[in-house]
Amino acid sequence: MNLIWLLLRASWLNVAIAVLTGLISGGCSAQLIALINSAVSGTTNNLLWYFVGLGLIIFFTTIISQFFLIELAQDAIYSLRLRLSQAILSSPLRHLEELGANRLMATLTEDAQTLSGAVFILPTICIDIAIILGCLVYLSWLSAAVFIVTIVFLALAIASIQFLLNKARDSLSLAREEEDRLFKHFRTITDGIKELKLHSQRRQQFLSEELQVSAAASRQHNITALRTYAIGDGWSQMLFFTIVCFLLLGLPRLVSVASSVLSAYILTIAYLLTPFRNIILRLPQFFRASVSLQKIEKMRLALASQHEETETFSPS
Amino acid sequence: MNLIWLLLRASWLNVAIAVLTGLISGGCSAQLIALINSAVSGTTNNLLWYFVGLGLIIFFTTIISQFFLIELAQDAIYSLRLRLSQAILSSPLRHLEELGANRLMATLTEDAQTLSGAVFILPTICIDIAIILGCLVYLSWLSAAVFIVTIVFLALAIASIQFLLNKARDSLSLAREEEDRLFKHFRTITDGIKELKLHSQRRQQFLSEELQVSAAASRQHNITALRTYAIGDGWSQMLFFTIVCFLLLGLPRLVSVASSVLSAYILTIAYLLTPFRNIILRLPQFFRASVSLQKIEKMRLALASQHEETETFSPS
Repeated sequence: MNLIWLLLRASWLNVAIAVLTGLISGGCSAQLIALINSAVSGTTNNLLWYFVGLGLIIFFTTIISQFFLIELAQDAIYSLRLRLSQAILSSPLRHLEELGANRLMATLTEDAQTLSGAVFILPTICIDIAIILGCLVYLSWLSAAVFIVTIVFLALAIASIQFLLNKARDSLSLAREEEDRLFKHFRTITDGIKELKLHSQRRQQFLSEELQVSAAASRQHNITALRTYAIGDGWSQMLFFTIVCFLLLGLPRLVSVASSVLSAYILTIAYLLTPFRNIILRLPQFFRASVSLQKIEKMRLALASQHEETETFSPS
Repeated sequence: MNLIWLLLRASWLNVAIAVLTGLISGGCSAQLIALINSAVSGTTNNLLWYFVGLGLIIFFTTIISQFFLIELAQDAIYSLRLRLSQAILSSPLRHLEELGANRLMATLTEDAQTLSGAVFILPTICIDIAIILGCLVYLSWLSAAVFIVTIVFLALAIASIQFLLNKARDSLSLAREEEDRLFKHFRTITDGIKELKLHSQRRQQFLSEELQVSAAASRQHNITALRTYAIGDGWSQMLFFTIVCFLLLGLPRLVSVASSVLSAYILTIAYLLTPFRNIILRLPQFFRASVSLQKIEKMRLALASQHEETETFSPS
């Protein structure tokens, strides 16, 4: 994904530290779930210090990982905005007029904002991926047979949810395009107000035939996207209950599984639900962000192609 | 919260249907968790049809609830944008100049966008609250003693996390104010480009003394907010493990609790973690949205106070 590349380019060292501490945090979470499972089945004693130790490690590694990513992401947005501003200021006037003030403004504000919203959630996504990986390792250690069933099921789940998300993404792209048009109309209001004030008929026409049409179309595309998305959300909940149902009722008829393993499995999968759902719920924001990033890149290329003068200005 | 009021005003019936179906979905989720617990302890047989039935009810009520809220929220944004546009068009020119084109533009685009992002997540939050309520009822039924411990713990958890979130909210407000200023600078670029082009010194000064300063300040406030927020996230993870640790290791020394009740409790709390964390993670977006909504309201009041002419235009 482009967003990851943006951060890697800013500082691969910070990304590496964040990923490493994130992985430690996720691994310890899985370890703690394993500990809870063995405490539930009453197999071990004197677990208090294990609990405290793992809890503290999770707390600090989570924070460290997020701090690094937060700093990095905010820096990336900051220098992106400055570089774009500088590129606009050093482009020929004629070229800027061709690009249009509304497109420039939309890129500087809305696209940068969308991007900033996505980098906001990136840190938690990384921790979530780490937790999922850690728990999967633990599940494979618990029982190979159940692990294979879970993995096959997970692959089917991801494929079907991905299909829904792709459809949602298409609608979101359409909504975004329509919002560009809406943005242009808003600009007509704030800039062309004098002209609109003079002509009452033109004003009515503008409201009902241009602005309202764009606003309605953008609403419709957003509704379609969010609906597809809601179906995906309900579907993923269903899938969780289906796999638990299969493990509890179906599997014991096929192979013999110890009841303690089964309950450990179900607790782990229930715990996995949090990061799994979190990632699925937040993916649309990434899609929006990658659309925005593409728009920003396109704008920068368009500006660079007509670079007029180079100035000594470094955003740092 | 203002956002809820915005939706209630749009259609209390739709909100009522969404809340009702959401509650059914949440209640069934709790029921299904209870079913899983009794299946794990092997107390009941022939559960397949219960599983299938509850799963289907959850799937459809989740979707219905979200569909209603999605439609409502998108309609609210749509008519908000149209009403604002119309209010601007029917305000006296002199008054609009006092308000400033950049503030008008920021309200029409960025604030409306932030609001739209928040209503995007509102449906899932409602389902999450319903799941939490349902699970709490189930927990109280399982064991009154453990329930009281959980509730006291939950209250402490919410209070401490709320404290962190309030601090994060303050920083986010500062960041938002700074971004208004940044917006103004972007507008200077797109609109005042001709003047900036003519004066190389003025251009350098603008970049390094105005735009860069605002961008840096907004980055700093965002970093502070997100860091506080990451601490809250790590803290809430710690709290989950603390309560599980207490239930497993501490409680059995104080009162006698059946091991099957304890494992049912832990599975339920692990399942609760998903909606609980989801709500906590998404609260900042609501804070942003309520700031934006206040700005929009202020703008609308400012426009209404100087209403010049009333036009026959109804956004529907």
